[in-house]
Amino acid sequence: MKSVISIRDFSRKEIDSLIVLALEKKRSGTVKKLNKKVASLFFENSTRTRTSSETAAENEGCYVNGFAGPEGTSVMKGEPLVDTVRMFEGYGYDAIVMRHNLEGAARLACDTVSIPVINGGDGSNSHPTQTLLDLMTIVEAKGKIDGLKIALVGDLKYGRTVHTLLQAFELYKVEVWLVSPEMLAMPEWRIEDYKKAGKEVIFNDDLMQAISTVDVLYMTRIQRERFPEGPEGDFEYKKVSGIYNLNASMLKEAKKDLIILHPLPRYKHNLEIAIDVDKTPYARYIEQARNGMFMRQAIIERVFGKGFEERKKKNEEHNLLWQDLKIEHGKKMGQHMLYRLENGTLIDHIEAGKGESVIRVLGLGKYKETPMIYAKNLTSKRFGKKDVIGIKDKELSEEELSKLALVCSHATVNMIRDNSVFKKGNVILPYKLVELIECNNPGCITYKKHHEHAVSVFYVENQDPLRVRCHYCEKPMSREEIKLL
Amino acid sequence: MKSVISIRDFSRKEIDSLIVLALEKKRSGTVKKLNKKVASLFFENSTRTRTSSETAAENEGCYVNGFAGPEGTSVMKGEPLVDTVRMFEGYGYDAIVMRHNLEGAARLACDTVSIPVINGGDGSNSHPTQTLLDLMTIVEAKGKIDGLKIALVGDLKYGRTVHTLLQAFELYKVEVWLVSPEMLAMPEWRIEDYKKAGKEVIFNDDLMQAISTVDVLYMTRIQRERFPEGPEGDFEYKKVSGIYNLNASMLKEAKKDLIILHPLPRYKHNLEIAIDVDKTPYARYIEQARNGMFMRQAIIERVFGKGFEERKKKNEEHNLLWQDLKIEHGKKMGQHMLYRLENGTLIDHIEAGKGESVIRVLGLGKYKETPMIYAKNLTSKRFGKKDVIGIKDKELSEEELSKLALVCSHATVNMIRDNSVFKKGNVILPYKLVELIECNNPGCITYKKHHEHAVSVFYVENQDPLRVRCHYCEKPMSREEIKLL
Amino acid sequence: MKSVISIRDFSRKEIDSLIVLALEKKRSGTVKKLNKKVASLFFENSTRTRTSSETAAENEGCYVNGFAGPEGTSVMKGEPLVDTVRMFEGYGYDAIVMRHNLEGAARLACDTVSIPVINGGDGSNSHPTQTLLDLMTIVEAKGKIDGLKIALVGDLKYGRTVHTLLQAFELYKVEVWLVSPEMLAMPEWRIEDYKKAGKEVIFNDDLMQAISTVDVLYMTRIQRERFPEGPEGDFEYKKVSGIYNLNASMLKEAKKDLIILHPLPRYKHNLEIAIDVDKTPYARYIEQARNGMFMRQAIIERVFGKGFEERKKKNEEHNLLWQDLKIEHGKKMGQHMLYRLENGTLIDHIEAGKGESVIRVLGLGKYKETPMIYAKNLTSKRFGKKDVIGIKDKELSEEELSKLALVCSHATVNMIRDNSVFKKGNVILPYKLVELIECNNPGCITYKKHHEHAVSVFYVENQDPLRVRCHYCEKPMSREEIKLL
Repeated sequence: MKSVISIRDFSRKEIDSLIVLALEKKRSGTVKKLNKKVASLFFENSTRTRTSSETAAENEGCYVNGFAGPEGTSVMKGEPLVDTVRMFEGYGYDAIVMRHNLEGAARLACDTVSIPVINGGDGSNSHPTQTLLDLMTIVEAKGKIDGLKIALVGDLKYGRTVHTLLQAFELYKVEVWLVSPEMLAMPEWRIEDYKKAGKEVIFNDDLMQAISTVDVLYMTRIQRERFPEGPEGDFEYKKVSGIYNLNASMLKEAKKDLIILHPLPRYKHNLEIAIDVDKTPYARYIEQARNGMFMRQAIIERVFGKGFEERKKKNEEHNLLWQDLKIEHGKKMGQHMLYRLENGTLIDHIEAGKGESVIRVLGLGKYKETPMIYAKNLTSKRFGKKDVIGIKDKELSEEELSKLALVCSHATVNMIRDNSVFKKGNVILPYKLVELIECNNPGCITYKKHHEHAVSVFYVENQDPLRVRCHYCEKPMSREEIKLL
Repeated sequence: MKSVISIRDFSRKEIDSLIVLALEKKRSGTVKKLNKKVASLFFENSTRTRTSSETAAENEGCYVNGFAGPEGTSVMKGEPLVDTVRMFEGYGYDAIVMRHNLEGAARLACDTVSIPVINGGDGSNSHPTQTLLDLMTIVEAKGKIDGLKIALVGDLKYGRTVHTLLQAFELYKVEVWLVSPEMLAMPEWRIEDYKKAGKEVIFNDDLMQAISTVDVLYMTRIQRERFPEGPEGDFEYKKVSGIYNLNASMLKEAKKDLIILHPLPRYKHNLEIAIDVDKTPYARYIEQARNGMFMRQAIIERVFGKGFEERKKKNEEHNLLWQDLKIEHGKKMGQHMLYRLENGTLIDHIEAGKGESVIRVLGLGKYKETPMIYAKNLTSKRFGKKDVIGIKDKELSEEELSKLALVCSHATVNMIRDNSVFKKGNVILPYKLVELIECNNPGCITYKKHHEHAVSVFYVENQDPLRVRCHYCEKPMSREEIKLL
Repeated sequence: MKSVISIRDFSRKEIDSLIVLALEKKRSGTVKKLNKKVASLFFENSTRTRTSSETAAENEGCYVNGFAGPEGTSVMKGEPLVDTVRMFEGYGYDAIVMRHNLEGAARLACDTVSIPVINGGDGSNSHPTQTLLDLMTIVEAKGKIDGLKIALVGDLKYGRTVHTLLQAFELYKVEVWLVSPEMLAMPEWRIEDYKKAGKEVIFNDDLMQAISTVDVLYMTRIQRERFPEGPEGDFEYKKVSGIYNLNASMLKEAKKDLIILHPLPRYKHNLEIAIDVDKTPYARYIEQARNGMFMRQAIIERVFGKGFEERKKKNEEHNLLWQDLKIEHGKKMGQHMLYRLENGTLIDHIEAGKGESVIRVLGLGKYKETPMIYAKNLTSKRFGKKDVIGIKDKELSEEELSKLALVCSHATVNMIRDNSVFKKGNVILPYKLVELIECNNPGCITYKKHHEHAVSVFYVENQDPLRVRCHYCEKPMSREEIKLL
């Protein structure tokens, strides 16, 4: 793996190794030895990530060009992302560092070009290099991550840095406190992801209690624009930011070796960390920002070197779409059905009531020329009641089989030729689903209104209950949420 | 010639040679050998032209600085272009790459500084480096340009890339198809220019027919803002862009070796080339964008090397303002005029009715102290009827002679001293006219409201009928269109 | 001194030496020898200062990164200035070049980081590198500065270049003419500063008279936005800019070796120097802009070399807050007061009527538990009338003594223990006052609404009458203007 798209792709071994390399670079300096071209494409504004990435590239000996914001680029003229990144690949750039407002943008870029892509933040989804520098700063201060109590404070709903950090903690043994007002709570599905990794979180909206307990306080900015407009929103915002803004006097009960982190920038009109905290021994956020450059140097060295060890995903190698069943009464079946099929497909054991969904996704309503039978609420040994559908003279394609499996998990498919069942089996979804499902996340780069023309890809993380995850924005969906394309 | 301002300045030999050099650079790579400073001045936004020019400069070993858009520059504070480019010359930059929204901006810059200027697009006038990379891409794919059928499709009215491309085709033997809706047709005068070079175009608004016939399909973007606001404009835009947007299914009738070009960016909200075309063998627009860098490297090498061979223009060396005539009855004339001139100027053989224009352009109405005679509708051997004007005690300056020739082509001027004609002749316009004519193109950099303080320069391309061309925006004007300053 | 914040910090010897170095660089070229990183932080837009600084840094061998305007940076997200500059220090940058819209911004940055800061303009306060290049251009043309007559023309109120230039002239023997409309006159306090250096200015609103008299004409831009909106403002603006706009025909009476300077950019829609002046021998503004690069190279060399010789300030080493007086009747005093103080402080000889101010600034109104006596309008040998204040069981802190001295200059403080005055003296303000005074300049970076969280610092330039000066915006205040924090 040569790209840095999501922290979910990284093994713990790789993360630990990057931290060691970055700390080594900080300690011993580095030699400009790469002679590479790096495209720095900031479709969304940034100062810290952009300049630290560019300086890191310079420190490693690279040439950098690109743009610092969407102003003054063809992006504003409505160029699709894929064209922009292909262009830089065409100009001989050896890697891309990019930030984009849409979730999954870095993934799409990575799928489009053959050069490595480093994600500098994609919407509210992911910010992996930030997480790596956050972890580096913890290791630098504490010597370890395992065993620590870590509070994530403030806006846990929109803040991509805390989202990605929580993903990383799946790999460590830490006690995570989520400290936020209810309306800015960590999205439910992100907590579920964390729990699926065998972890627990502690919910606590009391910042003072967190301060007196944890080893690491990770502060974030609460943005006025997340609250309703007008005086009521003002009131709510002030209340919340009043509670979750930190100043030196609040640190009296802190552990002696507490460290305070913040991805920065902080907001000068309503400082979430007061200036008087800067001089306390707890403050680590300036050093944390500084570490960003060294971590990005480490990443760049690896990108152009041996690359990264990938985290293995559970179902990755499962490509099966079909599980054969024994054909017992093949001939009989072709002959003794309610409606006799000489050639065609019989879908049996459809959960009662799901028959209509099957008809819809297979587009059978449209095939007026295809004779079809639909038997409802038959008695089934397995379900009590079942639906059965027979389609004359038609065998299902792979895509059709996938769609069938998406709406109904337990159906048995009988393929009939010359009055005889010659193949019978259950449909099981393969790991990767292409152009089947529409992502329901409006911030996802595949969402129609963005016109980025990305081909939908989903992964099946769990068969039953069905759980699929968008390849781009990494948001999971259950069977109920799935809408087919 | 060291600058790249207009494709009209380039000989075919030079263009062919640049293509060979650029293809060679693409094939064999290049060595950073120049140690020059290039100012990259994008008064108008661009991604492709800017980053490919800057990367090209870097590849050739140059240092680059400047700005990527008007935001954040003294341009926004109303600095005249000439001051901005002089500043960069003053800072020791060795060449300027620039894009500007006004037509003729690169020419004005080139006239102002003594370092080379490379035009990266000036309003809707010219984009010579784009044309060179377009031609390079055609040669790369086809091995030649001569003999090809080439369709220019879409917005031929405002698209500077197709304007400049058509100019280049003056030098080649190609069959040009102009495929556009009527309201976005190629400007009449550009087609006339092309015809004057002995060429013909084929008008055809049927894209499908073009697809099945031509060797090169050059697509352009149709911009919503070119159509009226409101629902009617919407309707028109959708109709037009519906007709001129290309997708893979439309290519069934294409020649096997058709190539599709596009200057990019394409517009993701209404793709003029659908994404599904990208994977067809016809698509060359990504490679075309890539070629931009190599062509710009070739240009930079030449700019700092031997420069470019210039295309010879027809009247370039004609500086004559005056053609002597034989003085036959000099003495008599001074004595026997309707109004006797002891000393002064007699303008004879003015086309009947043009007398008033002569009085106006020479400002004779203002000289109340200058006695003048104006004889109207006299009988003339040459014109049937003629006007005659006599001005006492005044000899015409060069500027006045030029103005006279601009309003009336055939007048005879008699200069009288001591009752005797001592000089008699016809006024013929010289090739270059300075500070005489106001350009009627509102996009021209000389247009008053832009306040760029450029001195008007026109060239006389044809004496009769009179055809002059603006030095900056390159738009021609006829005698009827001329308005004097 | 390694930073370039204000021309007031520079000795004349240093300025002269920088001019020699810059002229030498212009004459002989330079060698890239520094291997440093320079952060170019333009929180406010600029073309000339930014690109000449960046090119200068490149010429001296430095790597440059940063931003060209606030768009697309964390500044727009409300990051405090101190965080931004610390970040670049953290990334290993060796110096900062910055422009900012707030007065004192460069000073605050310089106080925050340990790397040198070069001020490229801070609001309408200072622009020291511009002044250095202005002086360089004068020396280049005239061989000297002493003895010249120099007119500053146009907007002397808001133009930071003329402000800084006038400060520099404190060190030279020049005759300064201030030529401006009344509403754009040089701020009174800046003229006073100049006069305190033993200088005089000549006020003259007649540009023609200046032209015929002076050796150097320093033109500036008059901005439309400085005048009221609407037609009346239009009228005023046109009148003023009509008077102070220069063209070639106005130069007939000029001295043969007059030079015309302008910081540029000039405004193309209403040129304060007409284009026809460019070709006169007087025009030096293009060369002046060019000199900017060489001067900035000289500055960069010094920043990374031996630094700059600092100008000595008058009171700089005065740290005394207290002047002892002889205790004559100590015991008696403790015993025979109107109100007997066993332990505490007696403030005597308060100017009559100032007693209430003392009570207010010492916050005595709040100490309900502190018994206090306040005697008004007693007969005094020194003042005729005096106020006296006694505070039981309280000794004044250093901060309280400073506040006392700020509101009342001549009070005598008696410290009483066990019925006896054990210490008696006058309070004298020390040179540096920290966190005491609120700057009354709305453009100052310490002004509350800007939320830059800068700690107030003032210097005492004069004890009587009291004159303090803001450390950041450099604006002086009198005792009457002082508002305590």
